[in-house]
Amino acid sequence: MDRQDRGLAFMLQYENVAWFDGKVVRILDRRVYPTKVEFVTCETHQDVTRAIADMVTQSAGPYTAAAMGMALAAHECRDRNASDQLAWLEDAADNISHARPTTVSRMRIITDGCLAAAKKAIESGGDAAQAIMDHTIEANNLRYSKVRRTAQYLVDLFPDNGTVMTQCFGETIVGMMLKECRERGKAIRLFCPETRPYFQGARLTATVCRDMGFDVTVITDNMPATVMQNENVDVFTSAADAISLDGYVVNKVGTFQIAIVAKYMGVPYYVTGAPDPGHPAIDTVTIEMRDPGFVLQAMGTRTAAEGVKGYYPSFDITPPHLVSGVVTDCGIYVPYDLPRYFKDSDGEFGQGGLNL
Amino acid sequence: MDRQDRGLAFMLQYENVAWFDGKVVRILDRRVYPTKVEFVTCETHQDVTRAIADMVTQSAGPYTAAAMGMALAAHECRDRNASDQLAWLEDAADNISHARPTTVSRMRIITDGCLAAAKKAIESGGDAAQAIMDHTIEANNLRYSKVRRTAQYLVDLFPDNGTVMTQCFGETIVGMMLKECRERGKAIRLFCPETRPYFQGARLTATVCRDMGFDVTVITDNMPATVMQNENVDVFTSAADAISLDGYVVNKVGTFQIAIVAKYMGVPYYVTGAPDPGHPAIDTVTIEMRDPGFVLQAMGTRTAAEGVKGYYPSFDITPPHLVSGVVTDCGIYVPYDLPRYFKDSDGEFGQGGLNL
Repeated sequence: MDRQDRGLAFMLQYENVAWFDGKVVRILDRRVYPTKVEFVTCETHQDVTRAIADMVTQSAGPYTAAAMGMALAAHECRDRNASDQLAWLEDAADNISHARPTTVSRMRIITDGCLAAAKKAIESGGDAAQAIMDHTIEANNLRYSKVRRTAQYLVDLFPDNGTVMTQCFGETIVGMMLKECRERGKAIRLFCPETRPYFQGARLTATVCRDMGFDVTVITDNMPATVMQNENVDVFTSAADAISLDGYVVNKVGTFQIAIVAKYMGVPYYVTGAPDPGHPAIDTVTIEMRDPGFVLQAMGTRTAAEGVKGYYPSFDITPPHLVSGVVTDCGIYVPYDLPRYFKDSDGEFGQGGLNL
Repeated sequence: MDRQDRGLAFMLQYENVAWFDGKVVRILDRRVYPTKVEFVTCETHQDVTRAIADMVTQSAGPYTAAAMGMALAAHECRDRNASDQLAWLEDAADNISHARPTTVSRMRIITDGCLAAAKKAIESGGDAAQAIMDHTIEANNLRYSKVRRTAQYLVDLFPDNGTVMTQCFGETIVGMMLKECRERGKAIRLFCPETRPYFQGARLTATVCRDMGFDVTVITDNMPATVMQNENVDVFTSAADAISLDGYVVNKVGTFQIAIVAKYMGVPYYVTGAPDPGHPAIDTVTIEMRDPGFVLQAMGTRTAAEGVKGYYPSFDITPPHLVSGVVTDCGIYVPYDLPRYFKDSDGEFGQGGLNL
């Protein structure tokens, strides 16, 4: 497989997430990345299920890992007859999609796509594993093309030699944004708040920026205001876990606070991603409260005394009056005009419409 | 020594910072507190100097530790003649005050006070160590009485059953504020941002709140906005490293950002402490930039990859239009009227005017 053929973003996926090499699936262990660059090797599709359940990868990672697990399952049963192959693959799809209880339905979209591709190959005497790989590459490339168009609109908004502040880890959009900057020769420098309690900004975003050759500085989450004041930040940007049709942004906790600070400083805030038709208004969104104990530690070391409580909302909600623009694959929308997106879009997102 | 006689704040000092017990000086090791409650035992005054240099204690801690080191030095030379005792104590003062290069002049105020007390005792045939202890208790008590009056004005501003957000560790004012709440039967609950990169909020403030019997919750530094929005925060308060006479607050990085968020949310921000005549205007303040590598780790574990830069301003500056009131021992001032404080105050701060 020629990685260059796949484009930079796909290369990033290959190196950073999961890949079936014809024999085993290797998954980058994001639990220790970037302190250690280690891969978990999965010899069976059940190993892939276990790795996903054990949080070896997260964000968009499990979806690629699941597809790779399906390719491995097809490899496992390649010498059986057609109906046995299909039965084996249906079992594997069931096993893999149930790796985490909260993502079964989204996972099912991935495994169903793989099953359909495999079935077609088996019926015509083709190689099911290869068919699953081809399908996955195609589905990812469809998503990448949309994320790339989004990145192009976003980078249009960056000044030359500008300073960009990000939040958390926007997965594919971060790589695409930097690729676009590089292709245009647009030098930017980046400030990444570390994003407690998981440090996605420090561990993931900053590493991608470094790998792509950009000047990147990690700050603690209490520094965005002083950095905006003293370091000429031109733009604040984040991805979103959801954008409701009435213009609210649901994203990793801290986004709301930086958006307030950006408004105070006169720095525009651009969110990337498609509006979510599943959320016609923000009141349909429930913010998940996670294990409060997790904020009482850092990188595995306890910070607070026994008897002290923690508090861990997974996301916060930024209202439309703090959002300068919603940047999508179809253009840049004001946050009060999002239904128009669906008139402009073909409605295809690839990989189950993942907004990652 | 009857700790109750000294009042709660002094008890806190005794337990949390440093004490000369007649033989040795024991200093609470804040580098591991509260995960471990361990004391460093100093058998000589040079051991005290080394402990201060090694950052065993910080904030106001080194000043009490220095005075305790002077008492130990007086104990060491107690059997010599008067002039030898004085020479020994002057050497000790020189040694202790140079423990950290940046605090020599402030340390010198402490050791000079101890020297004067010791000299008076030696000349009248008294116990120099006891004289230093008495002097230190008196100086601390003067400071405590001022901090206590400050706390009384501050607690006047808290609603009953109110919710208070703090920032970093305000040392004595935190204990005094809670003591005042308790004496008035004013139940409050507290939210403490953890205060990266040193975690003073998680490690120190939250532990004091817990020890004094209050409901306390630690949050990460990206959560103040969402907590203010969802948890009915009534007041944001912080101490200050300096308050310039034109109403700007210099405090641990993050204060500015929370003040912006508080203004957006309609939550008042009260800063405690006396205006600093050494800073007639904010342009006399230089913000120290510390080792940028320190933000790339948490509790000793590296967070970011090699090649990623860090950024570490020790403080930030909050402008007067974000400050709802400056709470002092002489009352509550609007931030544009601070020179009036010096008409109302007797100018005595105790312990070298430390604003801690």
